[in-house]
Amino acid sequence: MSYYSPSIEKLIEGFERLPSIGHKTAIRLAFHILNAREEEVTEFINSITNAKANLKYCSKCYNISDTDPCPICASPKREQNLICVVEDVKDVIAMERTHEFKGTYHVLHGSISPMNGIGPDEIKIKELLARIQQNPDIKEVVIATNPKVEGEATAMYISKLLKPLGVKVTRIAHGIPIRRRFGIYR
Amino acid sequence: MSYYSPSIEKLIEGFERLPSIGHKTAIRLAFHILNAREEEVTEFINSITNAKANLKYCSKCYNISDTDPCPICASPKREQNLICVVEDVKDVIAMERTHEFKGTYHVLHGSISPMNGIGPDEIKIKELLARIQQNPDIKEVVIATNPKVEGEATAMYISKLLKPLGVKVTRIAHGIPIRRRFGIYR
Repeated sequence: MSYYSPSIEKLIEGFERLPSIGHKTAIRLAFHILNAREEEVTEFINSITNAKANLKYCSKCYNISDTDPCPICASPKREQNLICVVEDVKDVIAMERTHEFKGTYHVLHGSISPMNGIGPDEIKIKELLARIQQNPDIKEVVIATNPKVEGEATAMYISKLLKPLGVKVTRIAHGIPIRRRFGIYR
Repeated sequence: MSYYSPSIEKLIEGFERLPSIGHKTAIRLAFHILNAREEEVTEFINSITNAKANLKYCSKCYNISDTDPCPICASPKREQNLICVVEDVKDVIAMERTHEFKGTYHVLHGSISPMNGIGPDEIKIKELLARIQQNPDIKEVVIATNPKVEGEATAMYISKLLKPLGVKVTRIAHGIPIRRRFGIYR
């Protein structure tokens, strides 16, 4: 039996459906919304609707963006002949934070995982192939999928697929450099 | 510098403004919304707008409710001549969960707290007084404010205010029954 009125109950359920929000947090959030000023709530709702309406996938790299092509693909400062292949939008952010990479990206939106029924056709591999075939300028592809089984399998699959095209395919290095791992400094 | 596009940034900020949501959780929630189906997001937004639009305060007890009077004040099964005074809407839920109380409520929406600039006029004390003056049937008022300094002060204030009206004023018992506290069982 519920002790809340139907509208509050619905609101709590709505918050509960979000990831990492439990029942108690959902109640706290629901009451926060109820007590919040009208403008605050409108702003929150607008941020959701705008994000859903404005955001699209960049038709070149499949990163999520307000514009198509995305700012990275459109930038003349980035090396357009270098592509870093990542699994997820969040990986682009992680790479950008390092300030080390000056090329462009290709977001796969997943990794090959037969256990979960995700084959090569479910992720943006076809699109990567087409992009490279259409742009003979592209010289190098760095595969930066996760160092887990699925990521490694995806990297292997892509590198075999791209080899006949004559582009240089490299795998990003993972882990701690060997000298530091053993605590040897010169 | 932000690595997210403006729409995502706004969405993350929106989530971050909610209580108990940190930056990382806000990012996770924002991406969840972006990946969620359109219907799911619409349902979530509707639950917020409906709650804000439909919910009102019961004009008798100031509990939050879809209807006015609220289901408790409107119920013939509840003892309308017994009022339990609580600080917050959540306290009503807590009391209801015990299934012990068969009267009605009066929600103060706070407690007297001079440190925070909250005097008797800022909470629903006037409304409680008026309610009792208008209903000579009301026999007993149980004050169930929190056992903290503010709650105690509020309880004291209300009991002094109500004494001249001839209603029985009681304070709800708090803490562990004394026998059990010392581990004595018969």
